Amino acid sequence: MSDQGPYCEYRMTVRVELPNQPGHFARLATIIAEEGANLGAIDLADARSDKTVRDITFDAQSECHAQRVVARLRTLQYVRVLSASDRIFLLHLGGKINTRSKVHLRTRNALSMAYTPGVARVSLAIAKDTSKAYAFTSKGNSVAVVTDGSAILGLGDLGPEAALPVMEGKVMLLKEFADIDGWPLCLGTHDVETIVRVVEAIAPTFGGINLEDISAPRCFEIEERLKKLLDIPVMHDDQHGTAIVVLAALLNALKVVGKELGRVKIVVNGLGAAGTACCRILLAAGVRSLIGCDRQGAVLRVIDDNLNEAQRDLRSCIHFDEPILTLRDALESADVLIGLSAANVLTSEDLRVMVEDRIVFAMANPDPEIPADVAAPLCRILATGRSDYPNQVNNLLAFLGIFRGALDVRAREINEPMKLAAAHAIASLVQDEHLSEELIVPSVFDKRVVRTVAQAVASAAHESGVARCRTRNGSGP
Amino acid sequence: MSDQGPYCEYRMTVRVELPNQPGHFARLATIIAEEGANLGAIDLADARSDKTVRDITFDAQSECHAQRVVARLRTLQYVRVLSASDRIFLLHLGGKINTRSKVHLRTRNALSMAYTPGVARVSLAIAKDTSKAYAFTSKGNSVAVVTDGSAILGLGDLGPEAALPVMEGKVMLLKEFADIDGWPLCLGTHDVETIVRVVEAIAPTFGGINLEDISAPRCFEIEERLKKLLDIPVMHDDQHGTAIVVLAALLNALKVVGKELGRVKIVVNGLGAAGTACCRILLAAGVRSLIGCDRQGAVLRVIDDNLNEAQRDLRSCIHFDEPILTLRDALESADVLIGLSAANVLTSEDLRVMVEDRIVFAMANPDPEIPADVAAPLCRILATGRSDYPNQVNNLLAFLGIFRGALDVRAREINEPMKLAAAHAIASLVQDEHLSEELIVPSVFDKRVVRTVAQAVASAAHESGVARCRTRNGSGP
Repeated sequence: MSDQGPYCEYRMTVRVELPNQPGHFARLATIIAEEGANLGAIDLADARSDKTVRDITFDAQSECHAQRVVARLRTLQYVRVLSASDRIFLLHLGGKINTRSKVHLRTRNALSMAYTPGVARVSLAIAKDTSKAYAFTSKGNSVAVVTDGSAILGLGDLGPEAALPVMEGKVMLLKEFADIDGWPLCLGTHDVETIVRVVEAIAPTFGGINLEDISAPRCFEIEERLKKLLDIPVMHDDQHGTAIVVLAALLNALKVVGKELGRVKIVVNGLGAAGTACCRILLAAGVRSLIGCDRQGAVLRVIDDNLNEAQRDLRSCIHFDEPILTLRDALESADVLIGLSAANVLTSEDLRVMVEDRIVFAMANPDPEIPADVAAPLCRILATGRSDYPNQVNNLLAFLGIFRGALDVRAREINEPMKLAAAHAIASLVQDEHLSEELIVPSVFDKRVVRTVAQAVASAAHESGVARCRTRNGSGP
Repeated sequence: MSDQGPYCEYRMTVRVELPNQPGHFARLATIIAEEGANLGAIDLADARSDKTVRDITFDAQSECHAQRVVARLRTLQYVRVLSASDRIFLLHLGGKINTRSKVHLRTRNALSMAYTPGVARVSLAIAKDTSKAYAFTSKGNSVAVVTDGSAILGLGDLGPEAALPVMEGKVMLLKEFADIDGWPLCLGTHDVETIVRVVEAIAPTFGGINLEDISAPRCFEIEERLKKLLDIPVMHDDQHGTAIVVLAALLNALKVVGKELGRVKIVVNGLGAAGTACCRILLAAGVRSLIGCDRQGAVLRVIDDNLNEAQRDLRSCIHFDEPILTLRDALESADVLIGLSAANVLTSEDLRVMVEDRIVFAMANPDPEIPADVAAPLCRILATGRSDYPNQVNNLLAFLGIFRGALDVRAREINEPMKLAAAHAIASLVQDEHLSEELIVPSVFDKRVVRTVAQAVASAAHESGVARCRTRNGSGP
């Protein structure tokens, strides 16, 4: 499957049969042009003496637009449209993941070793000492990607079936980037009690649990309870993955502008799953002046007076019903704005009240809190969640290495030192001489990221006493 | 990994470094011979001018015996034992399964199509019409292999971690023989209510649920409740997989001896999960005279009087506390004995009271109800669960094709007509001209089995109205 050119959400491939006579292809190309669609790859699928079959790819502006182009192609005389496929749906056909057997069961001998009767010896050995499951089963390299479908991407509650393509995407990432064997579990319930029970019950099978796209505030309780119940790492990626990458990006951004973490005033806008975790990790990393805003305005203010309390129990310091300032007032003389809220909730006037060398992370997806072209002239450093601007804050940078590192040392949990270590490791991957306003985080395709983060996380796990074993060689079993 | 020769449960591979001088290898071989271990493959791992490194494989009689051989090898002067590995544990190292991503995420374009932002369109399409999950996710080809670890193989309650190698074995079989993507879920609970809740919660992710190694009588309630709750196939393989293959084998055995299913007297010994399901399918297939025995003796008698009631609700006809006959008396003038109980509960005297042309299925694992060499002279047809005798009744023959067929038509359930169709399909694979006392079931390596069973099951699903779609081409997505 060709994927030339920049990404397009509405890329179609149409298979057409054309007579081998001049003019037919030109008429087809003309229609695509007239409709304002962008012609891409043209592949020959079959050539006979009188006819050719070609796969023609074009980019449209919407699903509707794509359908209109195909409909017009169907009206062409002598041209037969054999099929029209939406490339994204085509790629998803049959799902994006599968399982693989490491042993081929072609002989009775292999069957007898991998299954009955041979497997009984392995089962008995594990029954005697359950820690052996890490050595002789898939447990040690596997992560369940668990969601209830309640906060899928930025789209809200779509239900468990609709969550599955996203969780499969996560499983792909775990495999492709970190050689971790994940499996999606999309739960048909929103009940906190049931979700906790389900994850508790399945936990013996897995080396780690990645909670995903569970809406706030349920995600806090679910994660907290599971962390206490289980002896394997549990991490809600929407909270901590994002927070870790934000901290990494901020560490580098402050280097660029020459400010210190302990001396800047930071406003976090949006106190959902990611925003709350962001505040937490910023305080753990040494931030001493922080305002948290939600729809109502500023509902969290951390200064020297309540710094210890906020570090201990952040959520007790948030008073959603008692805003103390407007967002604009909160931004007055702030150095850093971290947006994890919604599209277009900020204006250029909001940014103007901040101090010079503004650092703005506008990470609402898919559209940031303020359009990048509006914000850019006002900021020294701008980061977003998008891949089509510089400084993409992408939680891929964190969770892959975190789970890799945690599994490598059979960690019992993912704790604060491990998260901080991950953030510093990500930041360290942009060397000082390369640091600039437009380069504060490494690329998600930088092959060093997962390994570097994994090593830092594994070391932190050791030092904090939650590792069950020494790091394995390499990454993966 | 070489797996020459017949299967041995205690096969070791020892890596040794030997000086390049005559006699060293001979001394080593002598020790192995003296200890009564069986020398197997000898592979050269490394050869230098003064030394060679060889991998020497030998079969021992027990774990202890293997250790003793290795200990003696270590006493040899000039020979260094570098490592000694148990082949079965070696094969299990790191587990036997993993996940695979079908799409390589090497470019930003691929990432954007398979993950955000592209995946959002697929999620939205499924949210509108959840049946689309079958087309665009792994759901349609995936089966959860669920156990609570309470009845692992013949070993009893070993806990969820110890169950994992067995469930991974099952996942391997699903993949290797039927191209189904399974994932093991070993639950850390024996509570019926919790197990039902857990499976109900995870069901949206999967196309089918294979319950496995759950002890009776909990397995009955769990399966029955889940079948009612879920709109995907649920099958407890220990019950129905075994029962289906028993019926298939019996159909062919009766052909060989020239008797009719509706006219024979059958005794089933052992009314656990498999035995109960056996009785059920036999009655559904047309058996009219059946006695079921458990440890206490005969506790179920089905004759014309209660045939309808037994077909409707078999368990209500079983009275565990009120045995009506001894096993010996039950066997008086029986044509068929089906053992699904424990090793050595039968004697040759028991078999002698049966009528001529005895058909005996002694399927306790790993050791049958009566040693095969004792039973064989007394039976016209003998079948066991073992691969080292003719007529292995192996539930591999059933469950792979059943799930393949059910997934192919997106079946809502696995019903009685589908199970009967599977049994007849398995039986049909031994053609009349090949049928004999020693060949009543096809080999598990017969490549036709899965496809033939799948097609029969898919047709039966259609005819009984539980199929969501027509059969897909081929087997697999």
